Amino acid sequence: MTTPVVPGRGPLRPLGLNEVRLTGGHWGERQAVNAANTIGHCLHWLEQLGWIDNFTRAATGAPFERAGREFSDSEVYKLAEAMAWEIGRTGDPGLEARFAELTAIIGAAQEEDGYLNTMFGHPGQRPRYSELEWGHELYCYGHLLQAGVARLRCYGEDGFTRLCRRAADHVCDVFGPGGAEKVCGHAEIEVGLAEFARATGETRYLEQARLFIERRGTRTLGDGGFGRAYYQDDVPVREAEVLRGHAVRALYLSAGAVDVAVDTGDDALLEAVRRQWDRTLARRTHLTGGMGSRYIDEAFGPDFALPPDRAYSESCAGVAAVMTAWRLMLATGDLGYSDLIERVAWNVLSGAAAPDGRSFFYANPLHVRTADPLPPGDGALPHQAAGGQRAPWYDVSCCPTNLARTFAQFAVYLATADETGVQLHQYAPASVDTVVGGSRFALTMVTSYPDDGAVVVRVEANDGGERTVSLRIPAWAEGASVTGPDGTTTEVEAGSTAAVTADFGPGDEIRLHLPVTARWTVPDPRIDAVRGCAAVERGPVVLCAESIDLPGGADVAELTVDASVPPVERDGRVFVSAQVHDRDGDWPYGPATPDGEGKSAEVALIPFRRRATRGPASMRVWLPLG
Amino acid sequence: MTTPVVPGRGPLRPLGLNEVRLTGGHWGERQAVNAANTIGHCLHWLEQLGWIDNFTRAATGAPFERAGREFSDSEVYKLAEAMAWEIGRTGDPGLEARFAELTAIIGAAQEEDGYLNTMFGHPGQRPRYSELEWGHELYCYGHLLQAGVARLRCYGEDGFTRLCRRAADHVCDVFGPGGAEKVCGHAEIEVGLAEFARATGETRYLEQARLFIERRGTRTLGDGGFGRAYYQDDVPVREAEVLRGHAVRALYLSAGAVDVAVDTGDDALLEAVRRQWDRTLARRTHLTGGMGSRYIDEAFGPDFALPPDRAYSESCAGVAAVMTAWRLMLATGDLGYSDLIERVAWNVLSGAAAPDGRSFFYANPLHVRTADPLPPGDGALPHQAAGGQRAPWYDVSCCPTNLARTFAQFAVYLATADETGVQLHQYAPASVDTVVGGSRFALTMVTSYPDDGAVVVRVEANDGGERTVSLRIPAWAEGASVTGPDGTTTEVEAGSTAAVTADFGPGDEIRLHLPVTARWTVPDPRIDAVRGCAAVERGPVVLCAESIDLPGGADVAELTVDASVPPVERDGRVFVSAQVHDRDGDWPYGPATPDGEGKSAEVALIPFRRRATRGPASMRVWLPLG
Repeated sequence: MTTPVVPGRGPLRPLGLNEVRLTGGHWGERQAVNAANTIGHCLHWLEQLGWIDNFTRAATGAPFERAGREFSDSEVYKLAEAMAWEIGRTGDPGLEARFAELTAIIGAAQEEDGYLNTMFGHPGQRPRYSELEWGHELYCYGHLLQAGVARLRCYGEDGFTRLCRRAADHVCDVFGPGGAEKVCGHAEIEVGLAEFARATGETRYLEQARLFIERRGTRTLGDGGFGRAYYQDDVPVREAEVLRGHAVRALYLSAGAVDVAVDTGDDALLEAVRRQWDRTLARRTHLTGGMGSRYIDEAFGPDFALPPDRAYSESCAGVAAVMTAWRLMLATGDLGYSDLIERVAWNVLSGAAAPDGRSFFYANPLHVRTADPLPPGDGALPHQAAGGQRAPWYDVSCCPTNLARTFAQFAVYLATADETGVQLHQYAPASVDTVVGGSRFALTMVTSYPDDGAVVVRVEANDGGERTVSLRIPAWAEGASVTGPDGTTTEVEAGSTAAVTADFGPGDEIRLHLPVTARWTVPDPRIDAVRGCAAVERGPVVLCAESIDLPGGADVAELTVDASVPPVERDGRVFVSAQVHDRDGDWPYGPATPDGEGKSAEVALIPFRRRATRGPASMRVWLPLG
Repeated sequence: MTTPVVPGRGPLRPLGLNEVRLTGGHWGERQAVNAANTIGHCLHWLEQLGWIDNFTRAATGAPFERAGREFSDSEVYKLAEAMAWEIGRTGDPGLEARFAELTAIIGAAQEEDGYLNTMFGHPGQRPRYSELEWGHELYCYGHLLQAGVARLRCYGEDGFTRLCRRAADHVCDVFGPGGAEKVCGHAEIEVGLAEFARATGETRYLEQARLFIERRGTRTLGDGGFGRAYYQDDVPVREAEVLRGHAVRALYLSAGAVDVAVDTGDDALLEAVRRQWDRTLARRTHLTGGMGSRYIDEAFGPDFALPPDRAYSESCAGVAAVMTAWRLMLATGDLGYSDLIERVAWNVLSGAAAPDGRSFFYANPLHVRTADPLPPGDGALPHQAAGGQRAPWYDVSCCPTNLARTFAQFAVYLATADETGVQLHQYAPASVDTVVGGSRFALTMVTSYPDDGAVVVRVEANDGGERTVSLRIPAWAEGASVTGPDGTTTEVEAGSTAAVTADFGPGDEIRLHLPVTARWTVPDPRIDAVRGCAAVERGPVVLCAESIDLPGGADVAELTVDASVPPVERDGRVFVSAQVHDRDGDWPYGPATPDGEGKSAEVALIPFRRRATRGPASMRVWLPLG
């Protein structure tokens, strides 16, 4: 069962990497580049910076100068997770050998009692668990356990999973009933423990996850530098109204809370996360699906504080949003949650990695004001550098390994099953081969979506009788239609699920048509930062303007658009009617706006994810109305 | 000569606190509250937190646990400066006694060679000047020397000024020709040395200021956490095009550069600062005159990045902008620079201190989204807390003492003189009694400006013959007029200087009329963050809406206004035609804006400086157009 998330109950059954396979297209390419380039790239940097060597040096028992930030162990674990999924998918023996090496290196640093962290507790270091606000010890275990889940599910018990068990037991020993009533400043242990409980059948781990969830918000942590909301220790999870504070923390916590709610039958807790999620989508999410509005604390801002130029929209928050949305979908059976996964995947995750998988955005703002190149040198960039170019690594480099593990498992987000059929969540060239009601049911998807809106779902095998294929109709898809195997075409409502039930035979086809024509989108008037602007979306893909495509070397600051003219598609490109201005002035406030006339131009837009692939450029998603 | 800034050359002569006196009105009240409350409040906090005691403990030579941040010494110096000006103005013997106490405490901590800093060089501390990026040692001297200038000019040589001389000599010894070719991470020593050179006649100090200005931008500092632009070490002052990086640093540096340019006859350097200043006003300044757009590094953003909710607009940047504008005005004789002083004074500085002078804003954003009270407790607040309430003190508490020294000397910004007459820069109840062309010339201003637009300038004494009274006509003052002593009324152009020349006798009056009626102001379309909004200004005063004044407990997020209807003034209050909406939704982006209809209302606005004086409220200056 090569499946990342397997809830104890729920209306839908998640599938594994052995059941859903990408067969090409954008995500197939992403997966291939991830395997060929990104995993090796990350390994190289982790070695070069000494973040792997920390384990070897910690194992000696002698004092050592540790490399990296307090959470650098977790990068090794996230990469191990990526490798484990990839091994599960391909059985790559080279990767398997490297995984074994990593296991030995990590395992050597584990203490007798299961403690494992290279930052604390060794000679010359601060004591274990002496700084839960910023120490990230439990956070690191969380990622270790997620890697352990991948290994258990893709391989089975081995040295790595045994060290994970010892670590999990240690956490329960120290923080369990009668132990330290504390939480970690960065949530992640919760989601790690909950899934590790599922993978091992060890309910003690679920109980420990539950304790951490319940403790959060009871102010066991100090105020820190940013206040307790930063690590969601201000209000208990079940009482909160909206996601707040550090976005990645808030989302990892939510994912863990859903897991605990589902496996303990705690519907009130599940409902609390749903409520927070819904309000976060309605008021605290960027058009790209990105989350986080604040550089200073990498946090959600207040409602409707969504500045495109300072949209933090951290890549890891994208990963964490997918984790939470997927768990909510599995818990409720509501395919609508996969809308956000689609939006985040196309606009945040895919664009956060360069096409070659060797450079990354840490933050994903929707507006870059100046066309700056990367700073000279080949070192790691400060993670809060607000530049418009992808960097090979960062001082805080959580995104490359997080993207690597997500791309490695991405296929599983495409489909689920239940006792009556299969649900398709994402549309991409892929095969689904699973068991429905005890019998084999196999499909392929043939599509160049979202370049084209046609998706053909072909039944390859159906060893049972009547089956239902359910199709997610995205909320933006006004005018979608489905043609069944009998040739009947039905209009389907945007934001609904289209179900086609038949006694399918091999070769039967369902044809889904999604209206991916480029369209203007306007924001809620309460989003101050983009008032008077419109953006162009095409299917799930958010487009942007780059200065490279403006006439005469103009900057995107000088651009206005006419949204009364629909975007035009020509030769696979999207164009909008625009004006390019040339303004000047001494003081930018006065009784009347300067004359808005400019030179008319037709301006090409590109997918947001493809920004910054042609050299430095100023860029904007939200285009001011002329 | 109780004058803060006395350039070595220039078309206009600044006046001293003995020549310009506030006789009531808003600024008279500010000065009185400052003397009665703020200075004592600051002294209390400096004592309570141990920031004064640091000097006493450093003097013992024994290791000690130092209180406060690396720049806390400077708060003591800025307060000493405020006290020195206040003593100069009033001769208050109680304050004089406290000043003498402070002198003894500070002096005891000074080393044999003139070094003076409680953070470095003592047993258990890092070595002197080992951390110029963040150590603030030279920055602290800068404030010490500004206090020394105040003391020299208001009192004369004493123990305090002698310790300042020793410190200045020490700086020249260490960083002068043949010494360490370094600068401080926070500019301030430049402006301190330059004026101390003027006050003492010691040209060595000017030369040292010049060296620091020339070295800045040659990358003598490390990259720090925010890059070299943060402390303006990226580009030499004379090559830069715009102010950038940390706003207070950039502005203190500019003030010092003007001083050096003027006193060394370096017109190219002066021109460089003017160029940067002009572009900063045109592209990087908030409507309030506030500067700084970034919380994370307290910095200017790129051009037109002026978000009202994250407008950092630090109070100290307001102080520093006044320092720079005043020096540029003195260097050029262009009264237009005093427009910015007026705007900053009314909207940033006055509002940064509570009416009782006992609580302060560190940052002055133009939009507060949530009506939050101060956190419980009576401790110092984190300086980057983005709250909407003034706090009594901050962990980084540069603003209270900076405001105190500015309010104490504010009268001098009202007027200058030259050989032919007097120039009036700010309009307030005040007396000017000075010497023009060798003879006494005395005026009083009678006005309740800006509540009312009438300013009466009455000649009290004129021992010479023909004199010119020049009046700054603010750039916003369309329709201003001046009535001379002969009763002739002349329309004067906004943004000009109106000169009235006559052989004035006692009792002669000039009547200036400034059109202070409330007016709508719209932003340059390139300021993304306030597109589709308008603000109301009344004279130099920026107004704002607070949720307290909205019907039915509505939030300012639900407000739109109709700027086609002029603001209405009634009973001393300003009202705008508005609508209050009640909106909802699941996802804030779509094909059409939700229906904009709301409940019509007439909404009262208040001066921005008076915000947050009636309890927690959401607030906004820029009002969305309906």
